[in-house]
Amino acid sequence: MTRDLRPLFDPRSVAIVGASATPGKWGYWLAQGALQAEERRAVFLVNRNGGEILGRTAYRSLAELPESPELVVITVPADGFEEAVDGALDAGAKALVVISAGLGEGGPEGRERERVAVERIRDAGALLVGPNCLGLFDAETNLHLSSNSVPSGPIGLISQSGNLALEVGMLAGDAGLGFSRFVSLGNQADLEAVELIHDFREHEPTRVIAVYCEDFRDGRAFARAAQQAVEAGKPVLLIAGGGTPGSARAARSHTGALVSDLVAVEAACAAAGIERVATPKELVDVAVARLGAPPARGRRVGIAADGGGSTVIAADLAAAHGLELPPVSRKTSSGLQAILPPTAATENPVDLAGGGEYDVFNFARVVELLLRSDDLDSVFLTGYFGGYSTYSEEHAAREVEAAVAMAKYAADAGKPFVVQTMYWRSAAAEALRDGGMPVYRDLEGALHALSALVRAGVAQPHGVPDVPPPAQPVEAAGYWAARALLEEAGVLFPEARRAQDSEAALAAANEIGYPVVLKALGDVHKSDAGGVAVGLADATALERQLSEMATLEASEYSVERTAPVEEGIELIVGSRRDPRFGPVTLVGMGGLYTEVLGDVAVALAPIGEDEAERLICSLRGAPLLLGARGRPALDVPAAARATAAFSRAAGEHPEIDELEINPLLVLPEGALGLDARIVLGGVDRDAA
Amino acid sequence: MTRDLRPLFDPRSVAIVGASATPGKWGYWLAQGALQAEERRAVFLVNRNGGEILGRTAYRSLAELPESPELVVITVPADGFEEAVDGALDAGAKALVVISAGLGEGGPEGRERERVAVERIRDAGALLVGPNCLGLFDAETNLHLSSNSVPSGPIGLISQSGNLALEVGMLAGDAGLGFSRFVSLGNQADLEAVELIHDFREHEPTRVIAVYCEDFRDGRAFARAAQQAVEAGKPVLLIAGGGTPGSARAARSHTGALVSDLVAVEAACAAAGIERVATPKELVDVAVARLGAPPARGRRVGIAADGGGSTVIAADLAAAHGLELPPVSRKTSSGLQAILPPTAATENPVDLAGGGEYDVFNFARVVELLLRSDDLDSVFLTGYFGGYSTYSEEHAAREVEAAVAMAKYAADAGKPFVVQTMYWRSAAAEALRDGGMPVYRDLEGALHALSALVRAGVAQPHGVPDVPPPAQPVEAAGYWAARALLEEAGVLFPEARRAQDSEAALAAANEIGYPVVLKALGDVHKSDAGGVAVGLADATALERQLSEMATLEASEYSVERTAPVEEGIELIVGSRRDPRFGPVTLVGMGGLYTEVLGDVAVALAPIGEDEAERLICSLRGAPLLLGARGRPALDVPAAARATAAFSRAAGEHPEIDELEINPLLVLPEGALGLDARIVLGGVDRDAA
Repeated sequence: MTRDLRPLFDPRSVAIVGASATPGKWGYWLAQGALQAEERRAVFLVNRNGGEILGRTAYRSLAELPESPELVVITVPADGFEEAVDGALDAGAKALVVISAGLGEGGPEGRERERVAVERIRDAGALLVGPNCLGLFDAETNLHLSSNSVPSGPIGLISQSGNLALEVGMLAGDAGLGFSRFVSLGNQADLEAVELIHDFREHEPTRVIAVYCEDFRDGRAFARAAQQAVEAGKPVLLIAGGGTPGSARAARSHTGALVSDLVAVEAACAAAGIERVATPKELVDVAVARLGAPPARGRRVGIAADGGGSTVIAADLAAAHGLELPPVSRKTSSGLQAILPPTAATENPVDLAGGGEYDVFNFARVVELLLRSDDLDSVFLTGYFGGYSTYSEEHAAREVEAAVAMAKYAADAGKPFVVQTMYWRSAAAEALRDGGMPVYRDLEGALHALSALVRAGVAQPHGVPDVPPPAQPVEAAGYWAARALLEEAGVLFPEARRAQDSEAALAAANEIGYPVVLKALGDVHKSDAGGVAVGLADATALERQLSEMATLEASEYSVERTAPVEEGIELIVGSRRDPRFGPVTLVGMGGLYTEVLGDVAVALAPIGEDEAERLICSLRGAPLLLGARGRPALDVPAAARATAAFSRAAGEHPEIDELEINPLLVLPEGALGLDARIVLGGVDRDAA
Repeated sequence: MTRDLRPLFDPRSVAIVGASATPGKWGYWLAQGALQAEERRAVFLVNRNGGEILGRTAYRSLAELPESPELVVITVPADGFEEAVDGALDAGAKALVVISAGLGEGGPEGRERERVAVERIRDAGALLVGPNCLGLFDAETNLHLSSNSVPSGPIGLISQSGNLALEVGMLAGDAGLGFSRFVSLGNQADLEAVELIHDFREHEPTRVIAVYCEDFRDGRAFARAAQQAVEAGKPVLLIAGGGTPGSARAARSHTGALVSDLVAVEAACAAAGIERVATPKELVDVAVARLGAPPARGRRVGIAADGGGSTVIAADLAAAHGLELPPVSRKTSSGLQAILPPTAATENPVDLAGGGEYDVFNFARVVELLLRSDDLDSVFLTGYFGGYSTYSEEHAAREVEAAVAMAKYAADAGKPFVVQTMYWRSAAAEALRDGGMPVYRDLEGALHALSALVRAGVAQPHGVPDVPPPAQPVEAAGYWAARALLEEAGVLFPEARRAQDSEAALAAANEIGYPVVLKALGDVHKSDAGGVAVGLADATALERQLSEMATLEASEYSVERTAPVEEGIELIVGSRRDPRFGPVTLVGMGGLYTEVLGDVAVALAPIGEDEAERLICSLRGAPLLLGARGRPALDVPAAARATAAFSRAAGEHPEIDELEINPLLVLPEGALGLDARIVLGGVDRDAA
């Protein structure tokens, strides 16, 4: 769906239905905002009582307008929703913005009213923003249709929260930024975030796309739109609301959102290259960095300050953000020593030790050396710089000179140069900003933003996969069905035989060869009730186990070849379906303890073998697979092949809610599924 | 050591040695600062060239002064350090503040010069701050002896960084706070942080003690001083610098600091009830909260905002901070429904859904209900509140009225009430501040501070233990020595026999009873080289194992009774000595995987059984010990007894650098050490 959104962002005429002469009312703010661009477009104020509003005569209805209003903003009570929509369409509107609340967010009845209205709107070749939204803004076309004024700048904001937009606007304004466009999504009855992301990608004044979303609708389409924007060079920053129990309660009540698991959102962000942020401040902090610095090619940062404490605190916080502070080469260190006093620290972090106070231009010399060092991917200046302007006018001038030089060196080096200064409003700080550099007041904002530049530079988003076309549906759940599905997909399992009773089990064991594994199948809870026995060395042991399992009332048994568990490490591979993002594959370190710790990594299914390997290697416990502590390296590529095959099978079966291999035993050569499970259509039918 | 610091903070007279008439020089700033209190105390400016400085005639030396200067500030080059100290003492000074750098931080020679000078200073009954410091400040006595001016307020700051003090001062000023006192520690040649903490505890205008430290000197004394301050009702907030490789490099070069492991600092903070913060902003954010709200009695927070997005984002961030958002009781929810529009969310978080816009006093009604709810330990208001003042003067007045009411309700309830508002400078925000409430601009600061209030309320600092008097030193390292030491302390191990050869091993096994465990001792690396064999079922198996181990060239063997490993969970218990904080005990979940993940908890040794149990239960993997996933609960008290006994043994043996039980097997009844290790005096003498 690629519709022309010009009637929304640059309408030839605007009508405000529900315009009001009373300050503090929505109909007043909207009228006031619309009138700011009266020279650019006709503005019609509509109020059923007529009268005068902000010096203009109000029309009593849309039918009275002298010309067709291209955009109609509706701010009447929900009761009048249908009438207002009909009136707008009859008047020839091509875009409707509905502020009115009390529709789809309230429940099914409201959603049905929205659906019917949207059908009429689309039939008329028009589009709808809202309902339950807070309007929109376009800086270039001077379109102000929201309650509060917002600053102009390079950020395109798509938001399911109006307050968030205001807060982001204030913080952005403080940082010298603002909005190119802002759209309040509301209930997304017609226009959804995905269509706006596509539109913002093509919108020249928009250089960063920021999204606050509670309901992702078609999550894959959303992620794909974001991926295309990222590929087109426009970073996408996302606040995803509703991932914890409390916020999910709030989101459902706020926009009737069908909330997604945080795990699915994380998988979508990784696939698309979306940078997830948690708060308005983080959003603006990261936007400042992405607008002012290139992505970093690696994690190695050089830190400089005139003052040991500043370097110490910054170094600790940088490490907490996963950045690396390698000592610089002897060459760079010698260069620094040649500039700085003998007490200076010249390895990294660099403490100018008064060298900046002695000559403030030494900051520029130090930063230049660090930017030129092959040992560093980015440079961070922190602390007092900017404060020398309080000494004298000469100091101030020299400090600005240093700032201008540093901005130039950074641009030449093509590396991120990020600055935190307690004198963030000084002339030197402004000179850095004018030179395009990201400048921060607080350390946490600066280092969070620098770590985002690193993520942008080193992450390898694998792209949003299509959900494969459905295969022949699986009809039964249970162990054998799961094994059959996964074996066909290419996952290896130990040899196994079905046995209905003890006699058959003993015969099966003879064919397979001792020691064997015995599993009781059916409605049994395996780990709790002892439904799995391993290492049964001979027929006596097997018989004893069979009689012990008799109490489980198993419907049948599986007798299996013993796998060399002690030679390998166990993974868990699972998949579940998110209501918005579809099948999500999860890989984790196996075992009881690790289930408790939740060492898992996730991806939108299906994934290829390379991506599966990256996923496995991203686990905190991955060093054990790769040969930590004197252990042999295991066959991670085989585990990745199994995981990729698993994820494809999960993707091809929409009738499966959950699919799991637990454990997947990774061996020095190969990988073996030791157990498998299917949950069909929301019910766990574990019976074979 | 409890010295009278009055000559430092409230001297009857001050002399500035190195005073200068040149703006931008230290000698100028110090003179300018000192002269601010000329009515309170005599100020003498000393410059070897004499002349006029800031309108006063400078003395050529301290010997020329008309009276004895009680406090002398020295800002001459390091070369003149001894001469200036002698001059000050000869003139009768009781306190010296030495700004001069280039002494102890540069290496042993400088430290020796400091030592000699301090000896003379102490002999004269005087004291020294610095060298390499940035001066000091006392608001009450109007003592300004630093480069920049700082705001006055309730925070007492002790800092090894001058820039940090400036930055904290600026941020505190924005929050309406400032310093009661500030002391720049420098190299701590004489006066150390610990003495200042004791002094600040008694200093009435100081209500929060903030410390930035790179070198803790006597770490136990430091922690004990902090503990006493906390017990006296003065929160201690600490930025500890130097815990990561990069920052340790910087700290060593900055003040010649002997840096402590982060683990030791963490243990000290837990013992003393110190709140650790990472940055100046965190420090001020937490100070605002501790000054404006009582500690929270639990983790349950109620969140309110007029706007769904605000509640959603805050709820997610609160969860990330470990706070809980329980749905409120039906009674509270009904109360909220009675106030708010039908679309409001009234469970928790509470979205006023326009109810605040309709009547801004509804914020106060909502907050009152939440503060009164027994389901909540604290209340957090976030988002737009404060912005209604932009509507009209009536709105503004009503909003302030609501703010005043909320502050009163919070004071009555005795619960934390924390506010974040994008209109943080509004009249309503100021009214909240005037009412003593913590108000923040950014969500992260507000929720970090709220989580600090929770820590202050729920943490149970166990107190800083004394290192016990040394016991008879252990002379040998190795397995048997470790076992003997720990068994004597009360740790249980499986029965074991020493065996010099195969014959002795077989005999030992017969006495113990099969299956046995065989360990090869001596210079062997056990896990890598197969020096431990378990489950040896009979003499044949033992003989085979002995011949396999022959290649290890073990000096002897241990033959041991088999422990029921499959019935328990393994812990690691270890101890190491920090150069500043002494012996630190560490408990972690055992096993290869968990060593990789580092699931550990630490405490200053020795610890009692209660503390050991809390420590074990704080592990992320603790649910497994307590009976997660259908497993039986294990004997955690027995594990705690073993850990407490271990920590006492570690504490009593300063000659031991490292002591370890790995693993400690926690069983349904009891806990058994399965292996033990001693490292003496820095060398691993694992040979038996």
